[in-house]
Amino acid sequence: MIPVADNLHIMDPVVAKAIKERDPLPLKKIAEDCRKANVYAMDINLGPLKHNAKEVITFVIETIQDAFGGRLLLDSVQAEVLEAGIAACKEPPIINGFSMEETKVKSILPLAAKYQTEIIGFLINAKGLVPLRAEERLEVASQLVAKAEESGVSPARIIIDPVLVPLSWQDGTRYNHELLEVLRLLPQLFGMPIKTIAGLSNLGAGSPNRKAKAKVEMSFILMLAAAKMDLILMNVAQKSNLDTLRLSQLLLGEKVFTWQEVEDANL
Amino acid sequence: MIPVADNLHIMDPVVAKAIKERDPLPLKKIAEDCRKANVYAMDINLGPLKHNAKEVITFVIETIQDAFGGRLLLDSVQAEVLEAGIAACKEPPIINGFSMEETKVKSILPLAAKYQTEIIGFLINAKGLVPLRAEERLEVASQLVAKAEESGVSPARIIIDPVLVPLSWQDGTRYNHELLEVLRLLPQLFGMPIKTIAGLSNLGAGSPNRKAKAKVEMSFILMLAAAKMDLILMNVAQKSNLDTLRLSQLLLGEKVFTWQEVEDANL
Repeated sequence: MIPVADNLHIMDPVVAKAIKERDPLPLKKIAEDCRKANVYAMDINLGPLKHNAKEVITFVIETIQDAFGGRLLLDSVQAEVLEAGIAACKEPPIINGFSMEETKVKSILPLAAKYQTEIIGFLINAKGLVPLRAEERLEVASQLVAKAEESGVSPARIIIDPVLVPLSWQDGTRYNHELLEVLRLLPQLFGMPIKTIAGLSNLGAGSPNRKAKAKVEMSFILMLAAAKMDLILMNVAQKSNLDTLRLSQLLLGEKVFTWQEVEDANL
Repeated sequence: MIPVADNLHIMDPVVAKAIKERDPLPLKKIAEDCRKANVYAMDINLGPLKHNAKEVITFVIETIQDAFGGRLLLDSVQAEVLEAGIAACKEPPIINGFSMEETKVKSILPLAAKYQTEIIGFLINAKGLVPLRAEERLEVASQLVAKAEESGVSPARIIIDPVLVPLSWQDGTRYNHELLEVLRLLPQLFGMPIKTIAGLSNLGAGSPNRKAKAKVEMSFILMLAAAKMDLILMNVAQKSNLDTLRLSQLLLGEKVFTWQEVEDANL
């Protein structure tokens, strides 16, 4: 499992201020930190943009893409923001993302076809809900892949997000237990392997304290790695996340195992 | 996933001394600690016994079974030790265990039929080796179940141990990565669910230090729980093991989730 950074997010006051003031330095700093963390990609989430949407996303991408030097995930529900973002990217980004909701299928999925990008497909049904049971979520996966193929997006360019939900939800643990079952069954659903991702920070929404949230994130990194998820969207400024991920890579043979590296991992 | 204690082991000098001196107190203390840890069962491993084999196993079981108050795993490669142990047990024990090695099939498996006990089946082939690849290990699982049925032991009374190997082995991480794949595929192999177990302490054999070993054990508790293993044989005197297991139970909804309990888990 390899990391994708979720560190450029409008909910971070540093990011919000930098964008408001068009101050490139804090954004470049985040991008450089993500590059140093050896992430696979970096997510850009600017929230809903009203005025100057195109100008804002273009500013952010032009500011960070050289400092980061890798792939970007454009995280938006606004097709016009995504399209402006795609235009600003030097390398093809990953669109984050679509679901079975009608607006997503109609306005966002076609962008992946038009610009030949990868796109994340959330296991969220037409009503905007995450189904509880694995079978129902796999049904949504089939629908997503079918819709994508209709639109000219091959399954090889879809990354499935089976959706981690907040543990504070009623039945939150059941939802996430079923997610592990989705990961178990997904390889058999299609005639080919399909990539997977999930966002770790959802888990701790509503958490009363940072330490408990960190423990939950560390635990899920190991559990998701064991369930063979491909990508994990997470806060890479949190060292316990990176160290735990590194440990999972050592234990699963994705990096060369040494006891010294286990000792060095600071959990 | 629920714990089975491996704390009564002849390699522990306290245990070795207590048995040599026929001193019941240290053994009763271990049994009480295991009871307090709420384990599913307790493993008794006295190593190869030469003289007084029957008397020794009888002494140990009679000493600890009331203090523990739960099921015992009788861990021996000697049929006569197992048979004496079974006779001393008030409740039917679990035999630990058999494999495709001829001596195990001929001398140990029949005890499970004769005494109608559960028995652990190691995914070890007729040559005494753990196959590397998941497919080969699943083939051994099929053979074990077939042999058991021939002997009159139903699959419902077999607990599969896919065998965690020391990380210090060449290819140790690959072996254990394949073990996760075995757990993923096993539910489909038979027409019914089959229980699973593995021994955690194998992982750290050859480890240079306790802290690194503890981190590895904690990580695998989470990874194996995510892979839906049923039972984990481990040192329950190590608090980080119990706290991590508890955390996995909270996160997977096996216990009622509260953020307070996550905070309290001392990793």
